[in-house]
Amino acid sequence: MSRPSDYVDTNRLWERHMTMATYGATASGGVTRLALSPEDAAARRQMIRWAAPLGLKASTDAAGNMFFRLCGSDPDAPPVVTGSHLDTQPSGGKFDGVYGVLAGLEAVEAIVAAGIKPRRSIDIVAWMNEEGSRFAPGMMGSAAFAGARALEDILRVRDADGVTVASALEQTNELVPNVPTRPLGGAVHAYVEAHIEQGPILERENYSVGVVTGIQGKRTFRVVIEGEAAHAGTSTRQERKDALMAAMSMIQALAGLLHDDADVVKFTVGRLVVVPNAPSVVPSDVSFSIDLRHPVSDELVRLGDCIATVCAQHAGPCEVKVEELSSALSLEFPSSMKDRIRNAADRIGVRTMDIYSAAGHDARYMHDICASGMIFIPCYKGITHNEAESALATDMADGARVLAEVLVELASSES
Amino acid sequence: MSRPSDYVDTNRLWERHMTMATYGATASGGVTRLALSPEDAAARRQMIRWAAPLGLKASTDAAGNMFFRLCGSDPDAPPVVTGSHLDTQPSGGKFDGVYGVLAGLEAVEAIVAAGIKPRRSIDIVAWMNEEGSRFAPGMMGSAAFAGARALEDILRVRDADGVTVASALEQTNELVPNVPTRPLGGAVHAYVEAHIEQGPILERENYSVGVVTGIQGKRTFRVVIEGEAAHAGTSTRQERKDALMAAMSMIQALAGLLHDDADVVKFTVGRLVVVPNAPSVVPSDVSFSIDLRHPVSDELVRLGDCIATVCAQHAGPCEVKVEELSSALSLEFPSSMKDRIRNAADRIGVRTMDIYSAAGHDARYMHDICASGMIFIPCYKGITHNEAESALATDMADGARVLAEVLVELASSES
Repeated sequence: MSRPSDYVDTNRLWERHMTMATYGATASGGVTRLALSPEDAAARRQMIRWAAPLGLKASTDAAGNMFFRLCGSDPDAPPVVTGSHLDTQPSGGKFDGVYGVLAGLEAVEAIVAAGIKPRRSIDIVAWMNEEGSRFAPGMMGSAAFAGARALEDILRVRDADGVTVASALEQTNELVPNVPTRPLGGAVHAYVEAHIEQGPILERENYSVGVVTGIQGKRTFRVVIEGEAAHAGTSTRQERKDALMAAMSMIQALAGLLHDDADVVKFTVGRLVVVPNAPSVVPSDVSFSIDLRHPVSDELVRLGDCIATVCAQHAGPCEVKVEELSSALSLEFPSSMKDRIRNAADRIGVRTMDIYSAAGHDARYMHDICASGMIFIPCYKGITHNEAESALATDMADGARVLAEVLVELASSES
Repeated sequence: MSRPSDYVDTNRLWERHMTMATYGATASGGVTRLALSPEDAAARRQMIRWAAPLGLKASTDAAGNMFFRLCGSDPDAPPVVTGSHLDTQPSGGKFDGVYGVLAGLEAVEAIVAAGIKPRRSIDIVAWMNEEGSRFAPGMMGSAAFAGARALEDILRVRDADGVTVASALEQTNELVPNVPTRPLGGAVHAYVEAHIEQGPILERENYSVGVVTGIQGKRTFRVVIEGEAAHAGTSTRQERKDALMAAMSMIQALAGLLHDDADVVKFTVGRLVVVPNAPSVVPSDVSFSIDLRHPVSDELVRLGDCIATVCAQHAGPCEVKVEELSSALSLEFPSSMKDRIRNAADRIGVRTMDIYSAAGHDARYMHDICASGMIFIPCYKGITHNEAESALATDMADGARVLAEVLVELASSES
């Protein structure tokens, strides 16, 4: 029997990335494809066009996740799932997320071409809203699938324009018609996600594939400050309740507290909104996001627990509310999955190194309900969440080859 | 001959403010009527409806200023001009600007009712874009009228959506049709502007009218920071070019430098915009506004001149550009105008106090081309640029009565 990895087509995989990148293409070569946007819908329709000739069955669930199934010989056996996400950051690149979905498609196409009919079905999934930039927090679809968040909680989240997930999902379903619905969740035998590293290590160390050992923990917060609008020319500093000055003071204090000499803590204020945001009006309201990560769960808990207190201490004359949006401790993938990925790569002559994921991924939630693992490939200089994000076609193919081998093994395994 | 001030109608003046406040009314009792918006156009049409029965001639100029003329017996004599502006801040109140226009209308209506036909024409003006919140900087219409800014420079300024003043003005002219055009600028005999104080002094000292002695100087700047987008989970602090952290550092340093114990300096960052503004992306770009004011021109120059240096020193790994948008030194109105206002008030039994304007006004630019002065009335607790802005009908009437007397005097004066 021929090996499925032999049928991975480097050019086809690359060209599909370039095609996907046209949905939401930016002038600077990046991609803006926010979750449940018309561009996201166009990417989903493209997936249907590629999957149909392979005989894959498309379906969607109540959380807006989309699946493409290669049916196994035993339809009752829990499936093997692979994939990632099609949504991007507002100024995102061509590879983050998309690679996991298209590597899954390439692996399945290779399995079909090799004449292999696996026992278990294999599902390629595109999770809804991994990025969390339009609707916060991210990884919504996988969280709903794994039961980590209630569907109703997710559906009522609003974007900056006040549009709910529920209504954006309805619009997406209209733009991607005639896709059968499947129940949310269900038993999964194993989950494998391929992704660009989003860091510089594999490239520097010259490996085309990394076996991901675990995922760094992350807590996210929203800080809302209420001050009072006043005239920039007439109100004295003593009278002011300047919400932006309070925000500055909080962020500086947090940075001082959280930044460590070893540069391990990741503390980011990525979003900050000022109201009324007019040059000659003292800001009445400011809200900002906090993204806090640390590989050691105890440290993540300790540091995150300081945030509300620090913000309250630096609110000055303003009111402040700190809300925790998500909390995920650091995790380690099971040895069985890491070994399987490492051994499959060895078998087809792909050198691997173990690597820790500093970024969060949908695999985080799947890890809670089934044996999960991840395959990383290098990305150019580690640049990501950026229009300049790039990867090599040969590395992408190596990742898809390892994935194809792992999927076949998992899909034929009994337990 | 009866005095024009006897014909000022307190209720009519109040009711007109309430009517004006319906154009752009907010749920919280404030007004959002940005310059050259459809709400601004609606307010202009309302002015036309009020002015027509009085026989006032409406006209507009190339800078979008709107005029309502009570024709004098000597049509060649340079007119007396009074007024202020109809645009508001994004979350503005019912009185800032509007009061000067409606007090002018009330004064002219009283002059007509008193049977007075002045020698000079009296123009009531609504200046285009005083607030500067949609199109920065403000006082655009009066600056163009007085020749302080070139018309072409103003017309190409864009709002946050990329709409130019030229195109918004065209839209406004379509929404306010059939208004004859008059040349921009021209000789003016004198300018008197009535306005709410936007500070707490008159209310606290219990005066209904203040004679404005001068206007505090103001410099405005735009700071543009360029960093680099990066992943919040994977990029280390050392690697980051975080434009928001650079902005925080600059603003804190500026606050430290500019804030004085005596609380005289007014330093405001009212507007700050983050790009891409997503929770898990290190900000690549930040721009923010600086509004700096000081009553002593030398100090204003000295402090403003430090800004670019301080920003450059605190840019860290980012690039920063500081652009000065406007610069106006502190000014003192001529004694002749202050005396005229004070004496007119004395004559009709209105007590006045001298008061300095911490806020900028269109009178700043008119001061450069003709004898100018201002009349202040109290506003509730000094609250302004805020939906809670309020004033008393009796104070508003006192201001209009003094204005009516001053306008008649100026319109009959030979030189």
